[in-house]
Amino acid sequence: MNLCLEVFGDRWSLLIVRDLMVRGYKTFKEFQESGEGIATNMLTDRLRKLESSGILERESDPSDGRKVNYRLTQKGIDLAPVLLDLLLWGARHEQTGASCSVILRMAKNREEILAEVARRWHERDSTPLIPQFDRAVALNLGRARRTGGSRSSPVPKTA
Amino acid sequence: MNLCLEVFGDRWSLLIVRDLMVRGYKTFKEFQESGEGIATNMLTDRLRKLESSGILERESDPSDGRKVNYRLTQKGIDLAPVLLDLLLWGARHEQTGASCSVILRMAKNREEILAEVARRWHERDSTPLIPQFDRAVALNLGRARRTGGSRSSPVPKTA
Repeated sequence: MNLCLEVFGDRWSLLIVRDLMVRGYKTFKEFQESGEGIATNMLTDRLRKLESSGILERESDPSDGRKVNYRLTQKGIDLAPVLLDLLLWGARHEQTGASCSVILRMAKNREEILAEVARRWHERDSTPLIPQFDRAVALNLGRARRTGGSRSSPVPKTA
Repeated sequence: MNLCLEVFGDRWSLLIVRDLMVRGYKTFKEFQESGEGIATNMLTDRLRKLESSGILERESDPSDGRKVNYRLTQKGIDLAPVLLDLLLWGARHEQTGASCSVILRMAKNREEILAEVARRWHERDSTPLIPQFDRAVALNLGRARRTGGSRSSPVPKTA
């Protein structure tokens, strides 16, 4: 565990991974404008560290080869359970405005949520996950599990 | 999530919580000598921050009222899933010497492990969990689950 903390035990790194994972962010500019107030040099440093740790990689934008996009590696996307548990913990114990029943449903739907995160990564679907979740939770994804399975559940996409 | 990172997005804080949770550490001296090389002033600072965030609390030692012990609060012990997932992730992706099959079994036994962490906290059982796990995994705790359930499974304690 000490080894992973060397890589990951830093607030900005966690936020970058979260933005890649659930907000569909891909570019330096998106991270910079994400509202957490990260300084440019700090962001550059953290992106480099995450790249050298094998958590994310840089790739050329398909439509404009001069633009760089960031993408989680397999090792990076495998952090999804850690981030989800941290989100659930925060929702339980900090004032986040999320209602108790929504959180309990998210905790129940842990496996669906993780499957959806993995699917989006695999298919390079950069739809933000958080608004999708609110809606998915409202639509009672838990019921879909019992009757179908997460991969086939018709979760509407938000733009 | 940003809120929990304010509290928790720091390597030393994570290590302190881990030591309380799985190593059975209780005293300042134990944290200090844990081998990670934390400076005294840093340790004092992190313990204070974790206390003011409601993750741990100080209490008098039952046998010597002048001695202070640290103990996780409910909010602190609820971080167990985050730490376990981080441990599993680290074991999968970093060189930790743990064999692949051991890790896969730990991942399968996630619920048992979390139940055991909660039981130890509740009963103030400060047996280190990590050696216990190695043995529990060797004894194939997964089989115990299918035939009994985690609370009644006879996991031997290590001294």
